[in-house]
Amino acid sequence: MRLYPAWRRSRSRWTRSCQCVSRGAAPSFDLSHEEFQRMGQRVLDSMWEAVRRGQEDPILPSARGHEIRELLDAPLPREGIAVDEVIESWVDTLLPLCRHNGHPRFFGYVVTSPDPVGIFADAMASAMNQGLTAWRSAPGATEVERVVLRWLDELVGFSGEGSGILTSGGSSANFHALALAVRKADVSAPRHRQAIYMSTEAHVSMKKAGRVLGVPDEQIRLVPVDASRRMRTELLLAWLHQDREAGLVPVAVCASAGGANTGAIDPLEQIADVCEAQDVWLHIDGAYGAPAAATTKYALMRDSFARADSLSLDPHKWLFAPVDVGCLLLRDETLSRALFGWESEYTAITQTDPIERFAFFDHGLEMTRRFRGLKVWSILKARGADAIVETIRRDIELREALDDRIAREPSLEHLGSELSISCFRFRPSSDETEGEVDELNRHILETIVQEGSAYMSPTYLEGRYALRACIVNFRTTIEDIDFLLDEVLRIGGAG
Amino acid sequence: MRLYPAWRRSRSRWTRSCQCVSRGAAPSFDLSHEEFQRMGQRVLDSMWEAVRRGQEDPILPSARGHEIRELLDAPLPREGIAVDEVIESWVDTLLPLCRHNGHPRFFGYVVTSPDPVGIFADAMASAMNQGLTAWRSAPGATEVERVVLRWLDELVGFSGEGSGILTSGGSSANFHALALAVRKADVSAPRHRQAIYMSTEAHVSMKKAGRVLGVPDEQIRLVPVDASRRMRTELLLAWLHQDREAGLVPVAVCASAGGANTGAIDPLEQIADVCEAQDVWLHIDGAYGAPAAATTKYALMRDSFARADSLSLDPHKWLFAPVDVGCLLLRDETLSRALFGWESEYTAITQTDPIERFAFFDHGLEMTRRFRGLKVWSILKARGADAIVETIRRDIELREALDDRIAREPSLEHLGSELSISCFRFRPSSDETEGEVDELNRHILETIVQEGSAYMSPTYLEGRYALRACIVNFRTTIEDIDFLLDEVLRIGGAG
Repeated sequence: MRLYPAWRRSRSRWTRSCQCVSRGAAPSFDLSHEEFQRMGQRVLDSMWEAVRRGQEDPILPSARGHEIRELLDAPLPREGIAVDEVIESWVDTLLPLCRHNGHPRFFGYVVTSPDPVGIFADAMASAMNQGLTAWRSAPGATEVERVVLRWLDELVGFSGEGSGILTSGGSSANFHALALAVRKADVSAPRHRQAIYMSTEAHVSMKKAGRVLGVPDEQIRLVPVDASRRMRTELLLAWLHQDREAGLVPVAVCASAGGANTGAIDPLEQIADVCEAQDVWLHIDGAYGAPAAATTKYALMRDSFARADSLSLDPHKWLFAPVDVGCLLLRDETLSRALFGWESEYTAITQTDPIERFAFFDHGLEMTRRFRGLKVWSILKARGADAIVETIRRDIELREALDDRIAREPSLEHLGSELSISCFRFRPSSDETEGEVDELNRHILETIVQEGSAYMSPTYLEGRYALRACIVNFRTTIEDIDFLLDEVLRIGGAG
Repeated sequence: MRLYPAWRRSRSRWTRSCQCVSRGAAPSFDLSHEEFQRMGQRVLDSMWEAVRRGQEDPILPSARGHEIRELLDAPLPREGIAVDEVIESWVDTLLPLCRHNGHPRFFGYVVTSPDPVGIFADAMASAMNQGLTAWRSAPGATEVERVVLRWLDELVGFSGEGSGILTSGGSSANFHALALAVRKADVSAPRHRQAIYMSTEAHVSMKKAGRVLGVPDEQIRLVPVDASRRMRTELLLAWLHQDREAGLVPVAVCASAGGANTGAIDPLEQIADVCEAQDVWLHIDGAYGAPAAATTKYALMRDSFARADSLSLDPHKWLFAPVDVGCLLLRDETLSRALFGWESEYTAITQTDPIERFAFFDHGLEMTRRFRGLKVWSILKARGADAIVETIRRDIELREALDDRIAREPSLEHLGSELSISCFRFRPSSDETEGEVDELNRHILETIVQEGSAYMSPTYLEGRYALRACIVNFRTTIEDIDFLLDEVLRIGGAG
């Protein structure tokens, strides 16, 4: 892009800095090209083992807490050991102690099977070691993240502007959204008089955010849900009115576009109407479910997203990026600049060009930020949005197939589903007490998890212990669904 | 660690999931072993180029904002392209647009030259894709992070317990510390009546944290500094008394163990005395400087660390880990559990063993957390703490050598230094006005940065434009220091 200046020709840094062993007294951590390649090849083999054994080994290791601690506990190492030994320990010691979230029969929580392209991109991001504080510190990486924000916005239909920030995940995205809403309301009321609203099914990160921000726990209003676990809008409205009459200031409503429990989607349009009429911030937590808005089946969500003040959306969930990368899309970027843009001499920006003046630290809590955008950029470029949306659509279809079979099996009881999550339980007859059914299902789940052949997570729905299966996986097939239900029936029947 | 169960022998998942191309209608993102190896080799080459060219190319690219945006802007890609093309673009397109922070003459901000072992470990962390929410979700990784916390604690001499959490960086660590201090005080005063204290030189992240948490900007007290830019403790004490008399509640004092501007270390012992006497939370921001406590020269800091309630410390700064990994060490873990441990049905923990019950989400904002500990664990094991401390010691020596030469050069004026940061300016004679000196030094810095042969950051010290050099680098040698000063003298002399 430019001719090399005189200093470059006159002196080769590289020749010198590659003389890896100590110059003077201090150790150098550099590797020669040969060493880098040789060790890199071992790293690559380890990465392959992680991907391969992550699909072949038991999903959860059987090792207990004290065994693992004994294996790993040690005083601070004063002397180093060979790099090869360290690399070896990743596969020999750590890999067998991993939960293999990318396994085709991993149905727990909302954890994805990471696209190898994303894994590779993350490796490159570490080698580039960009800290995305501001444009001047990472020009190319900053522009990559800004284009990724525009792509994510386009994918789900938010504002079309791509304003926002990549975060470490949905919890951080939700926190930033609430921090903005609360701050905006500070002018009319101190925090102990503010109130925020979400359903009883809302993600715990929003409740925690409210508490951290200084909204009293009892003013974090948990609105009851209907039979489909969707926020009851008429109760939301009643509570808003009641709080206003009591002198409290309603600050934000957090709606879920895909709850973590059953995938329930709150009545977003009705909630948007309420927020508009009441002039209250609408945040939509789409950390898990927002990408489904790109499918035909869930396209209606787009209309509500377009009315929200902020939207969370996690590429490390249903966009198949490795941990971590979350995203907050934000309607009005001047608000985040007003909250987070605290000037300092040390970080003063002297650029005048509007692109070059941009600083992520004006829009979020983090100063040094990992180059999380590279993996999202690389996955979207390599796969194309259409293939990703097709995979999301297929995950939803697999959940529907799971529900179909639950409906056909007399001893399985369906408890709720939406998007790619289904909750159900084994109930052989109506003779058992609720306590017995709970106990039996706990036994089923623990047996499956212990055997390591599949993985579900437990949850409680209206006090009942439920088996919860979540499919956010490009590897899962209908055979995996059948395997899971066969296991539930087998263990339940034997129990 | 255990015999494989029946399901494993009866059916090889792996054979199936390796038939990479589409099964049924949906695309698979898996690669065959051959493809993984072939692409992995290209990734490895790209990573090597990032490390190599990061030391050979101009440190900052000359490309302007609109050029980079034009290069990267595009609508959301609907169709994918070959993975090879994407990998190629990392080196061909993005690498020339990076700032090369690992370059031996990168003297800007507090950014490290990452240890290749850390880069490799980060790649493996992405392949393992552990989400460190709780022990049950990532047993081995959780224990690795907990042992890393104990090692970091031991390295700098905090509590010996290793209580705390790895974060995305110092800003997040500082935020968590203040969130705890503020929350603890909620019982005695609402946030608009709380006050926090730090010096005018304190890191911007603590000011932002106070604001986000709802402490009014005017109650974020910026205590003036002495000539060495250290907090003036007698003024801190006076302000504390005055605020109490005015009915405010002093909540926390944030002291710096290595300010970002000049590396200044606040009078930690005196501040600890004040905090003890006044029963106020003492947070020490050692994001940059804390590891220096492991050197003989700065060992005295350990005594104060042992008295603090919380301490920030960034392995992605002076412990040579790639971005991101910060750390908050915390005296009393029950406090973080009380603030962040909001129970939910979905995340309910059924384990009874104390090791297995542990959940990081009870101690911080994040739910899904990247496996940041692996790179710190791997670097400490491969290099040993002694070699790292030796490198830190050498960086400090290089700063002292830089100061020595500044003292010998009549046209250079020393403005302040501590740890591995030195601030100075070019001042050929006493004839120039302050404005002229500022302008000349701005010209020097911009020329150096534009030429790409070295990199310093600007700051303002008592309103004067200063050249700031920070050495957090295992590659920097005395020749690099001389090169930098030669350049300053050459450009200043010609200007």
